[in-house]
Amino acid sequence: VSTHLAVVLREPPVGELTPESFEVVDRPTPEPGPGEVLVEVSELSLDPYLRATLVGRHLGDAAVPVGGTVPGRAVARVVRSQADQLTEGTWVLAETGWQERAVVRAETAKVVTVPDGIPRSAVLGALGMPGLTAYAALRRHVQPAPGDTVVVSSATGGVGAVAGQLARIAGARTVAIVGDEQKQETALSVLGYDEAVIRGRDGWEEQLAAACPARIHGYVHMGDAPTLGVVAEMLAIGARVSLVGIQDSYGDGPRTMLRAGAVMSARASVHGMVVFDHLDLEREQTTRIGRFLQEGRMVLHEDRTTGLASAPEAFVRLMAGRNQGKVVVEVS
Amino acid sequence: VSTHLAVVLREPPVGELTPESFEVVDRPTPEPGPGEVLVEVSELSLDPYLRATLVGRHLGDAAVPVGGTVPGRAVARVVRSQADQLTEGTWVLAETGWQERAVVRAETAKVVTVPDGIPRSAVLGALGMPGLTAYAALRRHVQPAPGDTVVVSSATGGVGAVAGQLARIAGARTVAIVGDEQKQETALSVLGYDEAVIRGRDGWEEQLAAACPARIHGYVHMGDAPTLGVVAEMLAIGARVSLVGIQDSYGDGPRTMLRAGAVMSARASVHGMVVFDHLDLEREQTTRIGRFLQEGRMVLHEDRTTGLASAPEAFVRLMAGRNQGKVVVEVS
Repeated sequence: VSTHLAVVLREPPVGELTPESFEVVDRPTPEPGPGEVLVEVSELSLDPYLRATLVGRHLGDAAVPVGGTVPGRAVARVVRSQADQLTEGTWVLAETGWQERAVVRAETAKVVTVPDGIPRSAVLGALGMPGLTAYAALRRHVQPAPGDTVVVSSATGGVGAVAGQLARIAGARTVAIVGDEQKQETALSVLGYDEAVIRGRDGWEEQLAAACPARIHGYVHMGDAPTLGVVAEMLAIGARVSLVGIQDSYGDGPRTMLRAGAVMSARASVHGMVVFDHLDLEREQTTRIGRFLQEGRMVLHEDRTTGLASAPEAFVRLMAGRNQGKVVVEVS
Repeated sequence: VSTHLAVVLREPPVGELTPESFEVVDRPTPEPGPGEVLVEVSELSLDPYLRATLVGRHLGDAAVPVGGTVPGRAVARVVRSQADQLTEGTWVLAETGWQERAVVRAETAKVVTVPDGIPRSAVLGALGMPGLTAYAALRRHVQPAPGDTVVVSSATGGVGAVAGQLARIAGARTVAIVGDEQKQETALSVLGYDEAVIRGRDGWEEQLAAACPARIHGYVHMGDAPTLGVVAEMLAIGARVSLVGIQDSYGDGPRTMLRAGAVMSARASVHGMVVFDHLDLEREQTTRIGRFLQEGRMVLHEDRTTGLASAPEAFVRLMAGRNQGKVVVEVS
């Protein structure tokens, strides 16, 4: 019997996770049954929503029990097929979980197609769910117009990097809110933001205000409660806010509160974003972002680690906001 | 020299106002200059936004100094004209302030036209700014669909009574949040709400939940901070909230905070409503609401007092939420 590595939960996922919250185990590789395929994971996607999934707070997903494989999406290659529609060697996007090999139902695996010259891992980021999240947040909520000032928090992360670049392409002045100097540098020199402010530093509120002389017309929120509070007081008349990620929804921290009077004085609109409400935009997203990537108007920004065993530490870095771009684990 | 009564500020408007915050004085009636008219006030409108105006916190209006006439809008009749477009005897809607007579520039006075059988005072309520506020909140923000559950706080007030009736006409199940038994009775038997819950009473949250078995699809907020907090946790997926009035924007109370996670889980949209952004809807509002009033599908709900001297006490009742409907002072 052949075996493969998998990452399982070592303890109940309470509070802040550490690499020791997880465990790498060896397990027998199952055979695919009728309608199933065995896939070999190439690149595993780590995303913030997984934190909520672990405790059963993401959509309808059940909580992950101790000893259960951590869920996750990956680019993988079919190595054995019991399904007519997927031949061996086909590249797919599938819910494999954090493991080297997985059996999945063929109809839940999606054949990976990327434009010429674009790496396959783009389907985990700009051409996948993070990209769709950013695309829908801008298209449906923020609706940037040329000359608008659009602020993005977690501005260099998987969603933020796409949102900021899309807002720039739409003609907006873009301002990044980031967590450290390295990200500030990335925001400015890689992702093309006009300004980048490090949140929490002395004087950062004044820096943000100075970076937004016409106030803030659009805001993509994936930050902490204080960041939302600061931005809310700088909204321009008619501002649009997309709540894409709220830190306290992942863990057990203080609740993020928004001052209703700030929304009212700005005659702002604040929208809750859950990407699964916007799957109808997927074709539009992949067509447009694919073209922007090919034309070099947008870049992929990935934080890559090597080996399945690196996943726990990479995930902990992601949840602490210490990742540099879309987190991808190279598994094989 | 003829004189008339006016109500002025007796002291700086800090905190909760009392009837003694105001003073009724006798003052000389001025003559209209070129382009001006002298009007006699018939019915004076009292509205919550005036509280913010007093301290210079409503749009660009300057604060009212001690000794200054309290601002306000009224139905009035032209008694002397120095303007070609307004002949004596014409009924107008004008910014007269709280006084029996006022000189106003003719171009700022609006000729009053109401459908047959509708009292002129409707232009202060359902056919005026409160009605436009309600109309725009529903048309642009709440967008009730048949079968939706729409909740209105301050449900029997000048804006709320119109909002609730419009939502009912749009086919929604309507639920009133009110402050006392008398308003509960009014909500149910006069304004046609399906349910009415008295906020702040023991078990009122459970009553609201029971009144909204499919949760809350639309919410028109003019209440206090706890009410917003309770409703936010009962939003249905895709809910729309219009922030029409926030108590702490009038006074110096605690700030109304909204839990961002509640907005996000419901994928809700929260909109700040300032009626002056929606003046383009005025013709539509007056045409439709005028027809609803004529057809008897909607009723006017007024809280009338008599004599200019009754204005301070009526205004204090309004700000304390003890009014019964749109507050109108019969001046002459």
